[in-house]
Amino acid sequence: MPPKTAPKQDTKLVLIEAGINIMMEKGYNNTGIQEVLSSVGVPKGSFYHYFDSKEDFACNIIEHFDQCYSNRILESLRDKTISPVKRLKKYCQAGKANLLAQECRKGCLIGNLSQEMADQSETLRLCLSRVMGKWRDMFSGCIEEGQKNGEISSSFSPNAMAELFLSGWEGAVMRAKATKSVEPLDVFIDLFFAQILK
Amino acid sequence: MPPKTAPKQDTKLVLIEAGINIMMEKGYNNTGIQEVLSSVGVPKGSFYHYFDSKEDFACNIIEHFDQCYSNRILESLRDKTISPVKRLKKYCQAGKANLLAQECRKGCLIGNLSQEMADQSETLRLCLSRVMGKWRDMFSGCIEEGQKNGEISSSFSPNAMAELFLSGWEGAVMRAKATKSVEPLDVFIDLFFAQILK
Repeated sequence: MPPKTAPKQDTKLVLIEAGINIMMEKGYNNTGIQEVLSSVGVPKGSFYHYFDSKEDFACNIIEHFDQCYSNRILESLRDKTISPVKRLKKYCQAGKANLLAQECRKGCLIGNLSQEMADQSETLRLCLSRVMGKWRDMFSGCIEEGQKNGEISSSFSPNAMAELFLSGWEGAVMRAKATKSVEPLDVFIDLFFAQILK
Repeated sequence: MPPKTAPKQDTKLVLIEAGINIMMEKGYNNTGIQEVLSSVGVPKGSFYHYFDSKEDFACNIIEHFDQCYSNRILESLRDKTISPVKRLKKYCQAGKANLLAQECRKGCLIGNLSQEMADQSETLRLCLSRVMGKWRDMFSGCIEEGQKNGEISSSFSPNAMAELFLSGWEGAVMRAKATKSVEPLDVFIDLFFAQILK
C-alpha cells in the first residue's frame, strides 16, 4: 500500500494555520516561507503548489484568520441573552484574557499586518482594510442595538463609536505589547465604557 | 589640499536621518542597511564604524526621533498662551495635517516599530516603551493642568486619560494608514474631546 498523504486541502490549511502562528509574532517581512514549511514538515517544493507568492499566502492567512475570528465576534455580539453593553464588555474581557495568556505577545494579526504592510502592499492593505471594516460594522450593529434600547448614549453615530472601539482597542493592544502589561487595555475598557458609551 | 570629508558626527547623523525616513515607511525588518547607505552615498564599510548592529542603529534612530519629536510635543503642550484643551487639540490637528501631507503613509515611527518589534527585540521594546512612556507623561502633565483649572473632567486620573490619548491616537493612525483616509483621526478627535475630557 502506498503511504498515506494528507489531502491537498488539508496541507493548504496546515500551512495557513502555521503561517498565522508565526506571522502573528514575527510579522510579514520577518516570516520565512521555509520556516513555515519546516514547522509543519511540509517539503519545500510544495509551497508554490498552493500559493502564488508570499503575498498570496498572507492574503489566505488574513482571510482564514478573519473567518475564524469573525465567527467568534459574531457569536459574542449576537448573544441576545445579555445586553449590548455587556456583550461588548465580554468581548473586551475575552481579548484581555487572551493577551494575558500570551504574556502580552502577538496581539492582533490584522492590526500588526496593517501597521507593517499598509504602505508596502496595496493588495494586503485592501484585504486588511476590508476585514477591519467588517469588524467595525459588527461592533456598530451591537452599539446601534444599545442605542435603540437606551443603554448607550446617542450623542454619536454607532459607526463613529464602533470606529473608536476598534482603533482604540488596537492601539491599547499595541501599547500592551510594548509595555508587556495589560494596563493599557484596562484603561481603554474603563474609559470607553464610562465615558464614550454612557 | 586633501578633499573635504564630512566630520564623523555628521555622517552618523546623516545615516540616522536617512534611516528614520526609510524605516518609517518600510519598518525594521524590511529596511536594508545597504539601502540606507546608498540613499545618502555613504560607503558600505562605514556602517559598523558608527553602529554595532542594525539593532543599535534602530536604537539610535528611536532616540533621535524622540529628541526631535519630544521637543515639538513639549513646545506645543507648554504653550501657556492657550488653554490645555486647546493645546491637545492643536497637537491632534498638527498630527492630522502631517498624515494628510504624507497621503496617510508612514504614520508614527514609534508606534510602527512597537507593533513590529515588541516581540522580536527586548532591546528595542524597552527603548520604544521608554519613549512612549515619556510622551504619555507629557500629555498627562497637560491634562492635569486642565483638570486643575476645571477645563477637563476629573472623573479619571491624568495618567489614565493620557494613556487613552496616546493609545487611541496610535490606533487611529494605524487605521488611517490602512484605510488611506484621515476619518479615523477625525472620529478620535471628535469623541475624545467631547466625551473623555469633558
